[in-house]
Formats: sequence, C-alpha cells, structure tokens
Amino acid sequence: MAEEAAVAQAEAVRRLKHDKADPDEIAKEVAKLLEMKAQLGGDEGKHKFVLKTPKGTRDYSPKQMAIREKVFNAIISCFKRHGAEVIDTPVFELKETLTGKYGEDSKLIYDLKDQGGELLSLRYDLTVPFARYLAMNKITNIKRYHIAKVYRRDNPAMTRGRYREFYQCDFDIAGQFDPMIPDAECLKIAHEILSDLQLGDFLIKVNDRRILDGMFAVCGVPDSKFRTICSSVDKLDKVPWEEVRSEMVEEKGLSPEAADHIGEYVQLHGGLELIEQLLQDPKLSQNKLAKEGLGDMKLLFEYLTLFGITGKISFDLSLARGLDYYTGVIFEAVLLQQENDHVEEPVSVGSVAGGGRYDGLVGMFDPKGRKVPCVGISIGIERIFSILEQRVEASEEKIRTTETQVLVASAQKKLLEERLKLIAELWDAGIKAEVLYKKNPKLLNQLQYCEDTGIPLVAIVGEQELKDGVVKLRVVATREEVNVRRENLVEEIRMRTSP
Amino acid sequence: MAEEAAVAQAEAVRRLKHDKADPDEIAKEVAKLLEMKAQLGGDEGKHKFVLKTPKGTRDYSPKQMAIREKVFNAIISCFKRHGAEVIDTPVFELKETLTGKYGEDSKLIYDLKDQGGELLSLRYDLTVPFARYLAMNKITNIKRYHIAKVYRRDNPAMTRGRYREFYQCDFDIAGQFDPMIPDAECLKIAHEILSDLQLGDFLIKVNDRRILDGMFAVCGVPDSKFRTICSSVDKLDKVPWEEVRSEMVEEKGLSPEAADHIGEYVQLHGGLELIEQLLQDPKLSQNKLAKEGLGDMKLLFEYLTLFGITGKISFDLSLARGLDYYTGVIFEAVLLQQENDHVEEPVSVGSVAGGGRYDGLVGMFDPKGRKVPCVGISIGIERIFSILEQRVEASEEKIRTTETQVLVASAQKKLLEERLKLIAELWDAGIKAEVLYKKNPKLLNQLQYCEDTGIPLVAIVGEQELKDGVVKLRVVATREEVNVRRENLVEEIRMRTSP
Repeated sequence: MAEEAAVAQAEAVRRLKHDKADPDEIAKEVAKLLEMKAQLGGDEGKHKFVLKTPKGTRDYSPKQMAIREKVFNAIISCFKRHGAEVIDTPVFELKETLTGKYGEDSKLIYDLKDQGGELLSLRYDLTVPFARYLAMNKITNIKRYHIAKVYRRDNPAMTRGRYREFYQCDFDIAGQFDPMIPDAECLKIAHEILSDLQLGDFLIKVNDRRILDGMFAVCGVPDSKFRTICSSVDKLDKVPWEEVRSEMVEEKGLSPEAADHIGEYVQLHGGLELIEQLLQDPKLSQNKLAKEGLGDMKLLFEYLTLFGITGKISFDLSLARGLDYYTGVIFEAVLLQQENDHVEEPVSVGSVAGGGRYDGLVGMFDPKGRKVPCVGISIGIERIFSILEQRVEASEEKIRTTETQVLVASAQKKLLEERLKLIAELWDAGIKAEVLYKKNPKLLNQLQYCEDTGIPLVAIVGEQELKDGVVKLRVVATREEVNVRRENLVEEIRMRTSP
Repeated sequence: MAEEAAVAQAEAVRRLKHDKADPDEIAKEVAKLLEMKAQLGGDEGKHKFVLKTPKGTRDYSPKQMAIREKVFNAIISCFKRHGAEVIDTPVFELKETLTGKYGEDSKLIYDLKDQGGELLSLRYDLTVPFARYLAMNKITNIKRYHIAKVYRRDNPAMTRGRYREFYQCDFDIAGQFDPMIPDAECLKIAHEILSDLQLGDFLIKVNDRRILDGMFAVCGVPDSKFRTICSSVDKLDKVPWEEVRSEMVEEKGLSPEAADHIGEYVQLHGGLELIEQLLQDPKLSQNKLAKEGLGDMKLLFEYLTLFGITGKISFDLSLARGLDYYTGVIFEAVLLQQENDHVEEPVSVGSVAGGGRYDGLVGMFDPKGRKVPCVGISIGIERIFSILEQRVEASEEKIRTTETQVLVASAQKKLLEERLKLIAELWDAGIKAEVLYKKNPKLLNQLQYCEDTGIPLVAIVGEQELKDGVVKLRVVATREEVNVRRENLVEEIRMRTSP
C-alpha cells in the first residue's frame, strides 16, 4: 500500500509540474491521495481492527443455510402453488423513490454515501420497489413473489430474530378485481405456510384501515391526526393501553374523551358476529368509510369460511400496522405461546407475517397518478428461522450440509492419479463425488471423513481392482463391500442413493 | 406529510418549552425537522421525479427470472456435485474489512452514509467476506459456495452484461492440502459449468502470480513496481500492447528495455510444451519464484490431463488478474466468438469466470496472522445471462413463468363460491391452481387465460357437475373434456401433469 501511495503521489506531482492536469483532475488526485493516506493509517497504524459483521447482521453457516433453504422451499412451493411469477429488483433504489412512503419509520432507512452521481438508499421493504416496478413498466395486472433482503436501521434484538438485514418473502396481487377475492387468497397463503412449517399454534389478526379511520372519526379524532393516532394504536401489541393512551393525549394532543372512546373499540376482537354487531353500532354504521370496511370484512369472512380457515382468523380492532401506505384490509400473523395450565389465554410471541391492501402506492409513482390496486402478504423469515434453529439445536438432530453420494478413495499409496481419473468419470456422469486433497491419504481417514459428513458410499480403487476392471463399493453405514464392474459403477451408485 | 411535520414540530417546541430535552435530543429533533422539510420539498415541490432504477442496475422480469433460475440451477448442481456446502454473509461489511484488499479497484467500493454508528461498505466481491468469515470463525478447512450480489461503482456497459449490481457465483476450497489438487478441481468446475450451459466455444486461460513476479524480476522491474505493472499487464485483454507499454513507461516510470522484455514474454501462450520450454529458459529458470510457479503449473496440467480438459485450457503469460490478493495460480474463462471464414483465430468476447489462489488473505484478518491457503473460482453470471436472454429473444421460444397445473373455472354465473371451495381442496392437496378474481368470468376469458399463461388443464364446475359429484376436466391443448369424479380429481390432475 505504501508503494502504491508513493507511485500515485509521484504521478500527481509529475502531472502538476508538466501542467497537464486540469483543476478537476487535481482535485481527484488530492482526494485519491487522502484516501490512500487514510487507508495507510488504518492498515499500518492500529493493525487491530474488530473482526465482526456489522451491527444487526450475521453470517449463515452451512448448517444454518440448510435450515434456511428448507424454510424457503416451503414458502416458494406455496407461492408457486398459487400461480405466482417471480421478479427481482436492485438492493438500492433512488433515495426519492423511498421518500414519503413509510411515515415515522423513514428514519430507519439506510442511505448510501454521496460519492458523486445519484443519491441512493437501501430498500426498506419489497413493497415500494414492487410499486415502482409496476409504475415504471406500466403493469396493471400481476401476481408475483419476491424473496430478498431488506434493511432497517432499527434496534436489533437478534436473539428474538430482529435484525438490521433480514429476508422478506412477499406475495402480492396487483390489478382491478372483484372485492376481497385476492385479499382472501393472501390470508389462505399465510395459513398454508404457517401450517406447513409446523411452528405451533398461530393466529392471523385482520382489520381494515377504513374501519380504523371510521372509528377515529366517530371517536372525535381530527382528520389531521388519523395517521399519527394510528401509529399509536399500532403499539398495542407491545405496550399496554394505558401507555398508548398517554402517548395519544400527552404527546399527540388528543382529547382524553376521544382516547377513551378509542380505548373501548380497540378491545374488541372476534369473528363474523363482531362484524354484524359493529354494522349495527349506532355511530360506526353512520360513517361511510367504516361501513364500507365492515361490509368488505363480512365478504372476506365468507370467503375465508369457504377456504375453511376462519378458525385461525381474528377480526381485531386493535390491529393498525405501522406503514402509511395501507388503504384497506390489513393483517398480521402471530405465533401463540404453547398453551399450558398457567396461562389462561395463549400469549402472542411475535409477528411472523403481515400485509394488507395498498391501492394508492403505485399511483404515487405514476406520472399521471393512475392507480393499480394491490394486496399482499410478507412472511418474516428470521423469527421463523430462529425458532427452527433452536428446535434443531435442542433435538441434536444431525443435519447434512452437503449432498455428496460417494467418496473416491484408495487403500494403497500412489493412486492419486487413479482417484482423479475415476472421480472425473463420476462427475461427468452427474454423480456427486468428493476426493480427499492428499496424495496418499490413509483409508481410515477417508472413512472417517464419510462418517463426519454423512457420505453414504465409498468407491475404493486399488491395484487389484484396477487389474480386474472393478471398483470396490463400500456402504458406510453397514460396512458392506461389493466389487462393481467399472462400467456399472455409475448406475450402482445411483440405485443405492436414490431416495 | 405536512401534517406529520407539523405534529413533530409542535412536539419539539413543546419539549423545548418544558425543558425536558437534553442537547442531544434537541439536535435529533432539528435533524428530523430538516429531513421532513427536505421530504416536503421533494414531495410537494416538483412532483416529477425520475422513474428508474439506479445507474448500472436493473429489475428482473418474470421471464428474465425464469432464465436466471435455469442458469443458477446448472451452477448450483455443479457446486453440489463437487461436495460444496453453502454459506451467506451480509451485503455490507465494516468499511475497514474491505480496506487494502483490492489495490487500484478500491475506488469502486460503495460506502454507506455515516448515519451514526459503524462505517459500512457494500461488498465488492464474495472472496474478502469469505476470508473474514474463515478468520472470524477460526475455520481452517471448508469447501463452500456462495451466490450473491456484489457492488462496484464501475462504468456500466449493460448491453454487454456489465452492471454495478451483479451476481457472483463463487466456489472456494480453503485448507492446507497437497499442491494443485484443489486448483485443478476449480478448473474442472469452470469447464463443467461452461459446457453445461452450452454458451458456445470457450477457453480457460491459466497463469501464476509467481511466474508473473519472476518474469517481472528477470525483466528488471523494481520490486516496488510489481503490483502496478501487474495491473498494466491485466489490461492486455482489452487494449493493445503498445498502449500498455506506454502506460508502463510513461505513466509508471518503467524503463523501455524492461517493458520490451515483458512484451516478449506476454505474447506466449500454450500448454505443457510451453511450460517445459520456460523451465529451460536461461533467465526464468534461475528465478526461485518463477521456477516454483512453473513446477506447479506442470503438475496442474498433469491433473487437468487426467480430468480430460486440457483441450480448453491455455497457459497464458499475459493473464494477470486485477486484484491484489492472488498469490499463486490465476485463471480466467472467456467465451470465444463463433468461428467463421473471416476470422483466423477465434476472438474472445469476454470473461465469464475467473479466480485463483489467495494464500495470504485469511491471514490479513487473523489477529495472529495465521494463514489459511485458499483457491476459488467465481462465475460471472450476468454476461452468461445476457447471452441466453438474447438467444431466447431471437428464438421466440415461449417460456412459462408460472407452474400452475390447473385453472378452476365455471361456465355459468353465480359459481364463485363453488370455485373457491374447489380450489381450496386442490391447494390443500398440493396442486398448483389458479382462479380468476372475478365473480362471474366468461368461460372464453378463462380459457384464454390458460392459453396466455400455458396452464395445461381447466377444472370446470357447473350446476350439472355439482349435482353429479363430478368436475369437467379440460385439456387446453387438445380441447378434450372428461368428467372426473370429485374424489379422483387430485390424482387425475397429478397424473396428467407429471413430467
């Protein structure tokens, strides 16, 4: 590095002397030198930097990846079962693409440094990039999934699966359709995935932004405070009502009467009977928004009944969802603590999926404001993954991290060339095979390697086998050994390792 | 947004009045207000922002994703065939983790904005994060693959598949092993993948940093200029020798004699016979590094002969590779232009894979400098993807972007409920099924949807079928229709759509 700096400096000086450089170039050279100097300082000065991943992030080991892939496969299967296409978008967006979409959460967006050129931010979710994608490509009709990492400068709680870099698995339906059919499918999907993954009991809470807004109106919340009061309600799954009430009244200036009125509504949760009851509520039934929302909620429950999943669905007036862009149905799936004698009602241990309808978001990107109605569900994989990882740890279940079918081994020395020749034959035939990278490995070490990594078969070459045109095939589990003619080896391995 | 700003401002003023806030908090409030003001300006001021992805990046449409997944599957199959585990690391690293690893390319690293906390950069490749992972977890022995996006603030040339955000598919072998066995496997992998993908003719160039350094020494390049002269040689695949020579002499201050001497060597390329010839070269054979490198190169070619792949391998003294961290064998795979009568020798159209040995990188992260020898190969998916995409476009081949097996349809009105009941049955049985999100869709529209998206079967419910306990199953391609008893429907669909 010192050398490089010296060379660059010499070059800069030379250019300045010969007066070849223009002022821009000089500025660039100076910046380059300063950066090199900074690097030198970092490299040669302390020499003890911290060996870690950034705060709120982690590596995935092969074992963790094996669990992660299982979860992804379950989720992707479900998305494909529902006929979804898949798209991908860049990890960063123009900063202005994300501006004004997330309300109070905007402060959690990661910005990139201004290094000249466009101002960029890491994506905060997959929904806003999806809306940008639809508007940009003038797509008015699509059912797609997208699985990718998103970034939030939040306070990490990694043991509980809350990270700054984490995966979202999103399924969304965009297009103008008859009411509540796509919305019901999103809930069916959440139900299928959570059932498939066998995470224990769960509950999917459902509400509607129109019902919330109608409720705020009849409780006497001024229009201008709808969104901020909605943010307060959103905290009800984490803090008790008293605290939320005090935030509303003392911090946000809501009248105590309005707050108390809200307090009565947000206690309510139930099913079709609650919807019917609220449709009769003398105040709510007079509010246009609330009436619309309740009507659609009733239709939704009818469809969910046809899908046979109402048992795990709860219409819950305290569900608010943090993000600004929702316009209709909203939902959130929580895992319930295993019931036991001490707990009367199952307690929720955290949200694992959420979503809702956002009919206005695409229009925010369209130059003419053309709307594309959308509804979607996002599966939060990290918490699910934490649970499964802990379960595997506890069970001491052995998880294979490779799929190798056979180890090519030798019992005698000087057979590296023969091992390499044989393994190339196997690879070319599509067999998953490994060889130890040693000239003369001991047979015992080769067998031990199979034990450690779960390789089921060993193909052993030796002087005698080579003469006879055979390979000795050993089954690791049973120690059984058979001589297989070389031309039949591939087929024999396939047969013995087919699931 | 105006509302939010007003609320936040009121809150800030209130806190200041009541003297509850400490100076830090005040600073935060001010920052928050300024940001809100900026957002307001952006939102309500111009209202016409640019609808695009950041420079050098792109979205993947469902069709592009279908091609991309095919390529990934081929690559992952190969990596698994060679017994690799898989890991994942965060998209950003501590800035200092990347510092001093990339030589002249460091200027292309994306930094994140300093928003308080750690200084972060987007990963530039997967090799440095891998080395950091090994050192951090004290792993001395692993064979892993990693497929993920990396970031370079390079000048994009997107039509030729050069992006600022792009995938790398890396396979690396870490550990102390007998020489050149893992190195040979990396080349075998490149050969298998490029053959599998049927991209046309290709060539894998091989060289060794020790041979290059030995060559520089015997040509009279001062030690201090090895790396910068190496960078110049690296440009030989893009610019002619005359230009590289002038960079060496005029910009980097190398003597013309030394440059000319290098010029003679870098023309050389061939196979085993060239290695033998250079081992006899009066100057090179006297240089310890060059001799070591040539000896290993000979061994490598012996192993490649056993693998049967020397036909596509060329020992090429002009191959240098840009990155600082290589210490031994280096390689790069290029696609060759289809031969025709006008071109005497096939011309390379671009690098699609590269890699080499980097024995010192892990030691740079270990507090005690403990080394873990590594060798790896990185497949550059974007260029491969560009080629395949163009091929699909040209062939007008129809690519399905979903896997839906059956559309649940109805011929008459008022059967939405029956359609939803049936599709839930199919989903729950694992059948991939769709339904149009309309209360009363026309049968023609439903059949057209199948034609458009390639769905092979239609399950039609009607009054009569419901009475008879059957479903009418229609094969889209042949228009054949059969009545299937409802309890046999799942099995019938499976049978008719199994590959």
